[in-house]
Amino acid sequence: MHHLGFAVIDLDEAVATYERLFGATLEHREVVPDQGVEAASVLLGTSRVELLAPTGDDTPVGRFLAKRGPGMHHVAYEVPDVGAALAGLERAGAELIDHAPRRGLFGLEVAFVHPDAVHGVLTEVVCPV
Amino acid sequence: MHHLGFAVIDLDEAVATYERLFGATLEHREVVPDQGVEAASVLLGTSRVELLAPTGDDTPVGRFLAKRGPGMHHVAYEVPDVGAALAGLERAGAELIDHAPRRGLFGLEVAFVHPDAVHGVLTEVVCPV
Repeated sequence: MHHLGFAVIDLDEAVATYERLFGATLEHREVVPDQGVEAASVLLGTSRVELLAPTGDDTPVGRFLAKRGPGMHHVAYEVPDVGAALAGLERAGAELIDHAPRRGLFGLEVAFVHPDAVHGVLTEVVCPV
Repeated sequence: MHHLGFAVIDLDEAVATYERLFGATLEHREVVPDQGVEAASVLLGTSRVELLAPTGDDTPVGRFLAKRGPGMHHVAYEVPDVGAALAGLERAGAELIDHAPRRGLFGLEVAFVHPDAVHGVLTEVVCPV
């Protein structure tokens, strides 16, 4: 597992919560205007959580929050090759959101699988570059 | 991270999906009538996913499915000592669901932190026994 993505309303508060409750440490933080998100990745031991706050209401994370409230947003599995993983998923009949690898947060190569293909779980495949 | 818990409607179908899409292998499977759940843990590489199907509508997972549909249910972090982790969480001001360790699925020692304390994420601390 590369990381878990959690949608939050206030990024500063969420980072502080993970530091206080779980001794998490901040790994990266960035605003990605074209994805409508401000993201912080925090490490809990060897586990990584991406905290995602929307930059506005009409953004993917903003719409998620309006519909479901803050909480678990996606899971990302690390793969050696995102393109090969997508090809395998497509052969296995999975509905894809991204049909080719693209640049995700923090410079990662990523692609998303549709939650309908994975029993409601928005699933990402990731290759650190 | 010890595991992720995902709520599903049909456990056989969900296990088959994880095998087919991600090459997952079944680690354990059991029905726990007093928790109202049939659970399968599957391994994706070194990551563990607990697939949780309700044994009836009036169960915690049944009510979750009725309200939110299938999807991400909880995250479990491994700790060396659940009691000590709870004490630390309580000192840090976290609202707890379980104030003492209890027996969870697959013989694990577990306790749950209230999602309101963790920005909407139902969080478990786990110690394999």
